[in-house]
Amino acid sequence: MDSEIVFLEPRPAVLARRREIVADLASFLPKDAVISDERGLKPFETDAFVSHRRMPLAVALPETTEQVAEVLRYCSRNGIPVVPRGAGTSLCGGAIPQEDAVVIGLSKMARVLDVDLVNRTATVQAGVTNLCISEAVSGDGFFYAPDPSSQLACTIGGNIGMNSGGAHCLKYGVTTNNLLGVKMVLFDGTTIDVGGKALDPAGYDLLGIICGSEGQLGIVTEATVRLIAKAEGARPVLFGFGSSEAAGACVADVIGAGVIPVAMEFMDRQAIEICEAFAQAGYPLDVEALLIVEVEGSKTEMSAILADIVEIARRHDVKVVRECQSAQQAALIWKGRKSAFGATGRVGDYICMDGTVPLSELSNVLRRTGEIVASYGLRVANVFHAGDGNMHPLILFNANDPVEAAKAEAAGNDILKLCVDVGGCLTGEHGVGIEKRDLMRHQYGAVDLEQMMAVRAAFDPDWILNPSKVFPLDGRGVA
Amino acid sequence: MDSEIVFLEPRPAVLARRREIVADLASFLPKDAVISDERGLKPFETDAFVSHRRMPLAVALPETTEQVAEVLRYCSRNGIPVVPRGAGTSLCGGAIPQEDAVVIGLSKMARVLDVDLVNRTATVQAGVTNLCISEAVSGDGFFYAPDPSSQLACTIGGNIGMNSGGAHCLKYGVTTNNLLGVKMVLFDGTTIDVGGKALDPAGYDLLGIICGSEGQLGIVTEATVRLIAKAEGARPVLFGFGSSEAAGACVADVIGAGVIPVAMEFMDRQAIEICEAFAQAGYPLDVEALLIVEVEGSKTEMSAILADIVEIARRHDVKVVRECQSAQQAALIWKGRKSAFGATGRVGDYICMDGTVPLSELSNVLRRTGEIVASYGLRVANVFHAGDGNMHPLILFNANDPVEAAKAEAAGNDILKLCVDVGGCLTGEHGVGIEKRDLMRHQYGAVDLEQMMAVRAAFDPDWILNPSKVFPLDGRGVA
Repeated sequence: MDSEIVFLEPRPAVLARRREIVADLASFLPKDAVISDERGLKPFETDAFVSHRRMPLAVALPETTEQVAEVLRYCSRNGIPVVPRGAGTSLCGGAIPQEDAVVIGLSKMARVLDVDLVNRTATVQAGVTNLCISEAVSGDGFFYAPDPSSQLACTIGGNIGMNSGGAHCLKYGVTTNNLLGVKMVLFDGTTIDVGGKALDPAGYDLLGIICGSEGQLGIVTEATVRLIAKAEGARPVLFGFGSSEAAGACVADVIGAGVIPVAMEFMDRQAIEICEAFAQAGYPLDVEALLIVEVEGSKTEMSAILADIVEIARRHDVKVVRECQSAQQAALIWKGRKSAFGATGRVGDYICMDGTVPLSELSNVLRRTGEIVASYGLRVANVFHAGDGNMHPLILFNANDPVEAAKAEAAGNDILKLCVDVGGCLTGEHGVGIEKRDLMRHQYGAVDLEQMMAVRAAFDPDWILNPSKVFPLDGRGVA
Repeated sequence: MDSEIVFLEPRPAVLARRREIVADLASFLPKDAVISDERGLKPFETDAFVSHRRMPLAVALPETTEQVAEVLRYCSRNGIPVVPRGAGTSLCGGAIPQEDAVVIGLSKMARVLDVDLVNRTATVQAGVTNLCISEAVSGDGFFYAPDPSSQLACTIGGNIGMNSGGAHCLKYGVTTNNLLGVKMVLFDGTTIDVGGKALDPAGYDLLGIICGSEGQLGIVTEATVRLIAKAEGARPVLFGFGSSEAAGACVADVIGAGVIPVAMEFMDRQAIEICEAFAQAGYPLDVEALLIVEVEGSKTEMSAILADIVEIARRHDVKVVRECQSAQQAALIWKGRKSAFGATGRVGDYICMDGTVPLSELSNVLRRTGEIVASYGLRVANVFHAGDGNMHPLILFNANDPVEAAKAEAAGNDILKLCVDVGGCLTGEHGVGIEKRDLMRHQYGAVDLEQMMAVRAAFDPDWILNPSKVFPLDGRGVA
């Protein structure tokens, strides 16, 4: 599909000075912190959106905020684009470089700097993995709530860039709801501190707009996040339904009744089969759709909320209600769900969409998603954060067949447009990146996009930072 | 204290054209929608920060978004400042006009446009009062969570401008956590729609930065907010302590243990006496500090969380634990708390601070607040959202004594600087407005302020919107 995506034209003046730029970077960075040989650069040419690749000009691996600042100061003075990178797990091409760009990799900045249980905060460097934060405080009974499926690998810096979510965000919110402060280097090497341990800093909410800005407003080098106390107990329960529409309607009714479990995940038959084959999680195989609902609290609390949900599920003709019997089984249930993308990859090629819809549209969009994909002669597996209305249709296709690949992409675009048309949006947690850049016009009018680009220019007037992403290439406020 | 506050110099060209401007506004607005006579303008010359006053050039009371857009289009073309106004309950002077400004009052835009229980949202015009939203959905078992003490009068538009909080925000978050979308008119009359009913719209989080921007980025005319289901039951419980420090330490330990009640409000002896005299709420009068802790859920859930809190309170030598015995008593307990500012006003003049601190600093800052105020020979009452670390010292003084007034203001500044110095910030929920404009330099470095002003200029390049507020007058990016 590479032919479909246009990158910005590389700046010839930058390409011509490649050798000099590498030498300059090496002159002020530590030994081994600059990669410029082809073999070394290879791992940085793409991310989890693997259908597109570009070799960068060089990769810098700074160890301190000051070194990040030095690289940005140098690049902005010399008109060199910069692409920040965490673990490279972006599903929308957010970390794919361009030929004239220096990649700033945060992998060497992976220390937990401070754990403050009284204030329920942890301060970490941007290259720390998502799971590492929870592991650092697990012994004290706390955790960091947003849990992307890639949490073993993905970094908090990347999570902030994409405002990442996860299965347990229904109750606890996504990244922006759990982020308290950042240290960020601006395009010209200036460092700012935004937010902190106390509630709601005065002035504009720069922290809010930094979260989800895909590395275009600056490079976050440290983050302070909120910690949450683990509940007394937690229990995933499986609900099997006779149709996807029934499961979707049940989700809408549960949330509409004001009952908010910790997680409420959806799988259709295709996804159930794929995930069960991979994880042997004990998912029922004789249903058309499955909800994994996690409740937490004391035994009494869990029973009370579960009773409410069961009552609503009965109204939607639930076929199976299966409570988890052990911690081991609970782990398997979540392993199956969190491995869904990887397990689907074992079955064949797929592209994963990330639209969100109002819950009242969930059943409708599920049905129409099936119709859209079928109309292209393809199959779809649906596995997603239903309680949040954050859908992930996985469109299955053969990547070696260019016609089928084009059909998959067209079906994906139709689905995302449908999400927008029913009042939803293009991305719930994966970001816009390169993948959905051109669909932004479907969601936003020219005035909306211009206002976002004006904000971007207020941070990065020369469009140095991750310049090929988020906005359509034509019609930009700044070229 | 008026002499201390400098407003921007009125633009002579605007003042000279006053009569013409009024006629122009009247030409495209409905009958009676333009106020320009002195008696009519008088109610608009100040807000709840009553120590400062300025008569505006005129007041426009549009009835539709299109009319708001027409006024802004006219004013931006003619270089006329605009000050938006909800109910005028700002405690920091956010709605105080200036002599060359047209006030746009949203009071005629007070309709609930849509209640969507399946998606748990309400869409309302900006002039709807905070309480009106909860009242519109109360019969269906829902409410809108942020509850400023002024909720009977204050509007959702003003709440968005100031990112307002309230006693029950500890569990449910402040305005920014409960806002899903807005319709907003930009400085030049262009209208944009930001956010909506679905999770996390693509692109930059403009909604996040609009919330709390004090009317400087545009004028919000409609808002979509999240509704929350009422809990099965709710119960305020009174905890009396032998010292403010003990109560503060108890709050830190409760929250630090990961126990999050719905509300956790603090009153010191001075505040207890004032509020009890006003509301006869049954507050204990033989303690030095009181916590009002609200728990909610089923009876079992309430008992469980209460047991945890009582155990922690015992470690801090709690003197009184008094459970509320009836709905009537619960209402009185909250009436006493929510009337605290008004009740203090019956006792004498006061200024109310609004700093936030990390919870680990709560006891320390309470002690030092007492010392600071005593060093000026004044008295203080503390009544605030303790669970959020959002402090409200009320400094009591005689407004007819200019020396005492100056001392009160100096003590207030010292307290806010202390909040910043221990890692907190200048304002938790009241906003910066005029009151704390010059203290912004204590919280932020020049780079931070410049970055905020660059964002402001990306929305309002000519600084037409509420121009005297938020930022110090000198050193602005744009004059």
